[in-house]
Amino acid sequence: MRARPVVPATPGRRGLGVGEVRLADGFWARLQETNARATLEHCRTWMERLGWLANFDVVAAGTTGGERPGWQFSDSEVYKLLEAMAWELARTGDPALEATYDRLVDRVAAAQDEDGYLNTCFGHAGQAGRYTDLESGHELYCTGHLLQAAVARFRTAGDGRLVEVARRAADQACAEFGTGARAGICGHPEIEVGLAELGRALGEPRYTEQARLFVERRGHGTLEPIRLLSPAYFQDDVPVREADVWSGHAVRALYLAAGAVDVAVDTGDADLLGSVTRQWERTVERRTYLTGGMGSRHQDEGFGDDWELPPDRAYCETCAGIASTMVSWRLYLATGDVRYADLMERTYYNVVATSPRSDGQAFFYANPLHQRVARQDVEPDTENPRAEGGVRAPWFDVSCCPTNVARTLASWHAYVASVDGDELTLLQYAAGEVRTALDDGGELALRVETRYPDDGSVRVEVLDAPDRDVTLRLRVPAWADGATVAGPGTGRAAHAAAPGWVEVREVLRRGDVVVLELPVAPRLTWPDPRVDAVRGCVAVERGPLVLCAESTDLPAGAALEDLRIDPTAEPRPEADGAVVRGTLLTRRASGAQSSGLPYSGVAPVHEPFEELELPLVPYHRWAERGPSTMRVFLPTL
Amino acid sequence: MRARPVVPATPGRRGLGVGEVRLADGFWARLQETNARATLEHCRTWMERLGWLANFDVVAAGTTGGERPGWQFSDSEVYKLLEAMAWELARTGDPALEATYDRLVDRVAAAQDEDGYLNTCFGHAGQAGRYTDLESGHELYCTGHLLQAAVARFRTAGDGRLVEVARRAADQACAEFGTGARAGICGHPEIEVGLAELGRALGEPRYTEQARLFVERRGHGTLEPIRLLSPAYFQDDVPVREADVWSGHAVRALYLAAGAVDVAVDTGDADLLGSVTRQWERTVERRTYLTGGMGSRHQDEGFGDDWELPPDRAYCETCAGIASTMVSWRLYLATGDVRYADLMERTYYNVVATSPRSDGQAFFYANPLHQRVARQDVEPDTENPRAEGGVRAPWFDVSCCPTNVARTLASWHAYVASVDGDELTLLQYAAGEVRTALDDGGELALRVETRYPDDGSVRVEVLDAPDRDVTLRLRVPAWADGATVAGPGTGRAAHAAAPGWVEVREVLRRGDVVVLELPVAPRLTWPDPRVDAVRGCVAVERGPLVLCAESTDLPAGAALEDLRIDPTAEPRPEADGAVVRGTLLTRRASGAQSSGLPYSGVAPVHEPFEELELPLVPYHRWAERGPSTMRVFLPTL
Repeated sequence: MRARPVVPATPGRRGLGVGEVRLADGFWARLQETNARATLEHCRTWMERLGWLANFDVVAAGTTGGERPGWQFSDSEVYKLLEAMAWELARTGDPALEATYDRLVDRVAAAQDEDGYLNTCFGHAGQAGRYTDLESGHELYCTGHLLQAAVARFRTAGDGRLVEVARRAADQACAEFGTGARAGICGHPEIEVGLAELGRALGEPRYTEQARLFVERRGHGTLEPIRLLSPAYFQDDVPVREADVWSGHAVRALYLAAGAVDVAVDTGDADLLGSVTRQWERTVERRTYLTGGMGSRHQDEGFGDDWELPPDRAYCETCAGIASTMVSWRLYLATGDVRYADLMERTYYNVVATSPRSDGQAFFYANPLHQRVARQDVEPDTENPRAEGGVRAPWFDVSCCPTNVARTLASWHAYVASVDGDELTLLQYAAGEVRTALDDGGELALRVETRYPDDGSVRVEVLDAPDRDVTLRLRVPAWADGATVAGPGTGRAAHAAAPGWVEVREVLRRGDVVVLELPVAPRLTWPDPRVDAVRGCVAVERGPLVLCAESTDLPAGAALEDLRIDPTAEPRPEADGAVVRGTLLTRRASGAQSSGLPYSGVAPVHEPFEELELPLVPYHRWAERGPSTMRVFLPTL
Repeated sequence: MRARPVVPATPGRRGLGVGEVRLADGFWARLQETNARATLEHCRTWMERLGWLANFDVVAAGTTGGERPGWQFSDSEVYKLLEAMAWELARTGDPALEATYDRLVDRVAAAQDEDGYLNTCFGHAGQAGRYTDLESGHELYCTGHLLQAAVARFRTAGDGRLVEVARRAADQACAEFGTGARAGICGHPEIEVGLAELGRALGEPRYTEQARLFVERRGHGTLEPIRLLSPAYFQDDVPVREADVWSGHAVRALYLAAGAVDVAVDTGDADLLGSVTRQWERTVERRTYLTGGMGSRHQDEGFGDDWELPPDRAYCETCAGIASTMVSWRLYLATGDVRYADLMERTYYNVVATSPRSDGQAFFYANPLHQRVARQDVEPDTENPRAEGGVRAPWFDVSCCPTNVARTLASWHAYVASVDGDELTLLQYAAGEVRTALDDGGELALRVETRYPDDGSVRVEVLDAPDRDVTLRLRVPAWADGATVAGPGTGRAAHAAAPGWVEVREVLRRGDVVVLELPVAPRLTWPDPRVDAVRGCVAVERGPLVLCAESTDLPAGAALEDLRIDPTAEPRPEADGAVVRGTLLTRRASGAQSSGLPYSGVAPVHEPFEELELPLVPYHRWAERGPSTMRVFLPTL
């Protein structure tokens, strides 16, 4: 099945369909299994319990007007779950899940108004009128997620009830907000990407045009500021094509950018595409964490100024990480540039994989890189009202992250490779099989064997290939200094593979093997000196994994705040982590601090030291061994 | 006139009254003049324009029910202005101000209900009922500020209309929330300090008891969390006497602590006083900025975790600085410990004096120690919806700071000295005269001549003294390493004066002179290594002033982010600032950052350097020479 999340209307590079890739046991297969086994039902149960599903029944029954549980955007969680289920059904075809899915779709469909409008919070008896609060109402945001859910279903199972619901909802939005109608936009972008993709799926240019209108209308200050939140909060301060960096609420900025790329590609708008590309570049250069996380501020869940990347108060919302991969995937398809796939890998391993607890039933919302106070996970039956760092919670008051993780994991294998003509490119390394009909005819099938990221060896075996030259491309990540490749077309002997692409152009035969060796020995990483908040610190990475020090691994009585790392010592590999050499400060500062304040007229003296060897663990698995403090950036002085 | 802001019911140490101190030209006299000449009327005009004053007329006219301008707590700004005016009237007796004051009081009084309840937002036709929203309603908070305003008036002018209004409002609050009545507390502490002080002023123990009840009731989770804000936000998570550090919303925490000290002192509750003392110590040690600023987070205007002191996202609300001096003053009176006066000085010069623009018509709300993006002040007629750093605005959507600055500056001279028996202590150094009747009889009068803080020489001349041994104490700040004192009782020759107190116990004669020399040469200050956000940086202080580098003073084309300071070079004194030796990085990092991210596998190399000598200016005057970037902590590497 060639079904996949993003299908540009233009010919050229395409992702592989969910039916063209099958993961074997490994890092992502395990996450996907847990998602299928635990997370989907976990999300459904929570939304049933909280009444977010019953909201649809209430509208269907015409009994609105009472107290409605959930925020005004709770419908969107149902749609993201439906999207996740659609991808999951395409992967496994589980009949029990299919039945659950159908029942959910029936409840959603039953709440749709005659004219296609569908929202459980507005527009019915006892509710505020439709589109009376574009700033905060999130109606079009919800519709956008409905459309994405329908696109997933349409591409994996063809037309059907949810697709019909989405089509009518899209038509209603177009009627309300089309050319000559109301020139509004939604406070939270999402409708753009939903309409663009539905337009592609159904071959309906009106939807693409409506997406284009929403993108173009933005940035002209038509939304009223919400008290403390400025127009920049919802990207209504600068037109998309004039912005040079992402700012404001991170998820909003990134969903908007994803929609803008879809519009730019489908309408051939090179100027708009160039704008988003420049925004990506500057944002990655100055406003992105080592984990790939985006969003420096809790206050507005937003980007900070350039170089404002505090590790402790990093917001790095899980959804912003996911949204970032959505943008990067679109830019990769549009340009073929390897750096987008690089950032996706970084974000997948260090944001997306960090959020869910191993059991798939609790999630990080914020993903800070430094935790000073050990915090306990939220109890299984308790909803978390906040999004503080260091706490995985089963559900949140604003619970966007769990269902977003679910839909991303369920479709993750659709992002591991791309095809362009006779060229197949492996972008992400996971054990499994890839089988695709090449655009120029014939089938290419590969088996990937690897224990990546624990091990850097990736063995690609040809299972089937057409009887002509084809190109197999493998991504060599930017960090992979010293990678080698061996196989047909490369002289069979291992030779150096510089970061970027390594290409094998050959008549491939069944049984041919290409081996890529990526150096996953732990390595030190230094921040740009302009990232003030981590001056004098280094981080340790291992392959695509950002590592961290967790208090769990310290000697009894020691505290992370007293740790200093020796940056002249090579970190030593160990399992999926590393061991670094360091010291513990036993005296922090000399000199009188008679003011009582943490500042002194005498420079701090650090002696005597107590030496130690400290294991570092993958950041994505921190806080799973009990409450702990943690830091990614380790002081050297 | 012995009128003063805080008058413990117990005998012992007391502050000087506003009539006992007269400032001569100097740092604080100039701020006080600007406050009198510009700020008071500025605040009144804004509140008239916005309808916050008319809200009282509307209640008086019985025409409530329409749209009411301002937040639910806007009444409190009127009361803080009335408090400021009362202090100012005691200083100057300006008849025009008196008339303005009387008219304002009349409008306020006219809005009081029959039973003493007074609030323009609740409890009248078309409004929510009284005390129906203790979490956010701020009714008792407003009442607390009313009582403080009345206390200022009572102590400076005796009984009168506002005092009568306050008495009735206090009685109403006691009836509503007294023993056996409703056991509620207000989401925003302030009523405690208001009731305690009114109880002292009027000799009414019921008010003190009601303050005690409010303090004791707090911390038991009776307030409902407001969505994202936890009970810690309004200090309802831990009882006051059990807390070991301040947390949550900084202004709330500090107003509460001030009230708790008043209650502890007047009821002889040593346990409660000890608790607040410990909270002060730990907060100063781990949660306080070099400027004395408190509050590390924008999100909830709150304290962060220990050592979480980011310079760029420092909130350091002006009001929190003021509230901190309120707490320290009370603890000083209760304990006589010099460190409280030290922190007050730090906070006065670097937070309170930083907020108002030189013309007294625009104010910083947040006081960050690092500004990466140059921002323009808000236009004269424009209200600022936010509280971002780097912008002085004439008024704010939530406009607590301007009137708080006004009342603090108008009464500032009441905090410069204290008397205990035959001992007079000079706490803050400002040119002027002090004349007080000693508790043990006789009058002591001193003239202080100094250009402090520009110069560290403080000359104290005796104008009058009783004919017996008295003690004159001078504070030697904790930073004043190398201070000397000369005068009667010290052998007349200058000798070393260690930080703390220097005492002169003598039969003082008219014409006797004591000279304190405080070393105000600029000095380097290092942060505790646990303050991660400024690792590898030093600050420069000069006497009580924190200095900062402002982009205005850089060579053309240079950027603050490229500045490195040589910490081995002594900063050179210059005017009220300093000159430091530094370099500008001309290359930031070597090695490929092919990822596009601001992290590299190669340690940054800083060469070649361009050397420079950079003037530093007092932090309190930054952003007055046009938009600029700024930093207090200067990287050394």
